[in-house]
Amino acid sequence: METMLQRPPAIIGQREDEVDTPALLLDLDAFEYNLDRMAQLVAGTGVRLRPHAKTHKSPVIAQLQIALGAVGQCVQKVGEAEALVWGGVRDVFVSNEVVGTAKLARFAALAKIANVAICADSDAHVVAIEAAAADATVRVPVYVEIDAGAGRCGIEPGERAALLARRIAQSQHLTFGGLQAYNGSAQHQRRPQERAAAIETAADAVRRTIDALERLDLRCPVVTGGGTGTFEYEIASGVYTEIQPGSYCFMDADYARNLDANGKPVSTFRQSLFVLSTVMSVPRAGTAVLDAGHKAVTIDSGLPLLWQRPELAYVDASDEHGALSYAPDAQAPRLGEKIRLVPGHCDPTVDRHDWYVGVRNGRVECLWPIPARGAMH
Amino acid sequence: METMLQRPPAIIGQREDEVDTPALLLDLDAFEYNLDRMAQLVAGTGVRLRPHAKTHKSPVIAQLQIALGAVGQCVQKVGEAEALVWGGVRDVFVSNEVVGTAKLARFAALAKIANVAICADSDAHVVAIEAAAADATVRVPVYVEIDAGAGRCGIEPGERAALLARRIAQSQHLTFGGLQAYNGSAQHQRRPQERAAAIETAADAVRRTIDALERLDLRCPVVTGGGTGTFEYEIASGVYTEIQPGSYCFMDADYARNLDANGKPVSTFRQSLFVLSTVMSVPRAGTAVLDAGHKAVTIDSGLPLLWQRPELAYVDASDEHGALSYAPDAQAPRLGEKIRLVPGHCDPTVDRHDWYVGVRNGRVECLWPIPARGAMH
Repeated sequence: METMLQRPPAIIGQREDEVDTPALLLDLDAFEYNLDRMAQLVAGTGVRLRPHAKTHKSPVIAQLQIALGAVGQCVQKVGEAEALVWGGVRDVFVSNEVVGTAKLARFAALAKIANVAICADSDAHVVAIEAAAADATVRVPVYVEIDAGAGRCGIEPGERAALLARRIAQSQHLTFGGLQAYNGSAQHQRRPQERAAAIETAADAVRRTIDALERLDLRCPVVTGGGTGTFEYEIASGVYTEIQPGSYCFMDADYARNLDANGKPVSTFRQSLFVLSTVMSVPRAGTAVLDAGHKAVTIDSGLPLLWQRPELAYVDASDEHGALSYAPDAQAPRLGEKIRLVPGHCDPTVDRHDWYVGVRNGRVECLWPIPARGAMH
Repeated sequence: METMLQRPPAIIGQREDEVDTPALLLDLDAFEYNLDRMAQLVAGTGVRLRPHAKTHKSPVIAQLQIALGAVGQCVQKVGEAEALVWGGVRDVFVSNEVVGTAKLARFAALAKIANVAICADSDAHVVAIEAAAADATVRVPVYVEIDAGAGRCGIEPGERAALLARRIAQSQHLTFGGLQAYNGSAQHQRRPQERAAAIETAADAVRRTIDALERLDLRCPVVTGGGTGTFEYEIASGVYTEIQPGSYCFMDADYARNLDANGKPVSTFRQSLFVLSTVMSVPRAGTAVLDAGHKAVTIDSGLPLLWQRPELAYVDASDEHGALSYAPDAQAPRLGEKIRLVPGHCDPTVDRHDWYVGVRNGRVECLWPIPARGAMH
């Protein structure tokens, strides 16, 4: 009773224009540039890099990040942690609350073969993690997630958070790992002043919590948070000891709308992730249809953009079709022509595919599976 | 070199509240009601039912539909056709253009073991299908897709379409299958008059094309189209001989916004598809967070609704989180509580999951794999 595996859409050595579509294309030069660039930006800051695998869902990419100095990986789901640990990653932090006996038993089982840690934002979470750890005879680090300004998960910073940390520290099955303080909503605020202000608010929440921890004679081993849109502010804050960016390795159309201090698009990283698509119909002048709709490239953060094709616009996504428009006097796309799309949002777009097709100089150089694709449990 | 299979989130015999989440839940009573209801609505009309498997992606569900009288299945992608044929479905129509030598070779290979047909909206498509059929020494039916009003794919109705049909009919490797005339944009027009008018336009386009075919001494064997929002109008038109509804077996929040002649939500079918989710955090009064974000339940047609929980609202979807709000005086959701979501759009939501969890009377009765999940090639 098994589901079908989707075959890779390419063969190593093929030309890019021979790749079957829709395909998740990784420009290896840009991808490697991004990994190197982040390693350089973090080097010497004293802050650790723990990239978020919710973006790439791949132990191969995790290992490349770790080889360049990352201390491990973040994930959101136990299933993602399993895919990484089973793929050889030795240090995985579940930067999220996990609820359910079966899930926590799976988490605790991983603690026997890797360093894994997890978050809690209430006593009830701690009680459940403690029971799972006791059952598995392991001792696991638990981080207190504080609401760092996003208003989603996270306990109130300050005394309430510190009391939860004490509850963890007093357990014989748990250790207090530190504070999870991620403000997701700050990542896509367009102006740098807005992002800086949001992270200053997050850092204030961290400081208040560290003060409250000190009043309870508790030390905070790690403060972790930050994403691709804000990590430089977390580093500069002086309170974060670890950052969790995910998207930097790929980038997307939504991040490309973030602006720098000069009002220009932030250019720290390069676009390395694409969905390769094919023109499948040119039914009338001014219209062409691609074979990549929102089942292939998600639209939760807007429509995809066309890569280096200023004369074309992706104007509508249905399930399996993408409608292109172009000026009547522009050259019409050819039936069968391959076109690169820049995803609106990289994380969920990766989660639609089973394989990365790595390309360099117009050739397929590697195929990497995406074992945490669909790992939502 | 394989991707990881996602394990089923349930065990047969479990209670629904024991199912791991997020899970794609199928209420079997409602699902069977929908299959029966459609069979009744089509019976005696002389119009054939060929449900669209782009919705369910499952040979199990295809076989249940066929057992109730459906003549076969529609799909959008060759990979979906493979999943169905390999799962025992004997008659599959690719209601879409397919471009690419490798894809068409796979399509032609299926013609050796099943009745398969495909669409074209240009000479170039026909030439490519002809070459693939010749290579595989098969003869395959090709349908001419006309633009039935959606302005997506499809050749201009009338003479141009008829000439394309003649090109097909004259090939020794092809047969002219008929006309594909689907107006997707009509499915979710809210008022019945709007839907009826859109299908009247589509039927006119069909009539003009049939007239043009007759002038070329060509008979049109099949006129196929129609979806869950409009199929009754296609049946009433007198020109359609086959309908292609997909969503009727599941329904979703978007279809629930369609109105009947009395201005009430259309109630022909029942909601049978849900995403089961768990309350994973209750961080402050008025807020709770579910473990199902838009990686588990897509938001391309709006946010999911909560099933039979009028006191709660799903107000924001991030990748792995769903934010609930509720009135401060309402009872807060409990941590760990299971909540059914009605997907905004059933087709792409199914495509996020590897398994259907069939439930009846609060128990898991069956697990069905989704082999065409991710079959986008």
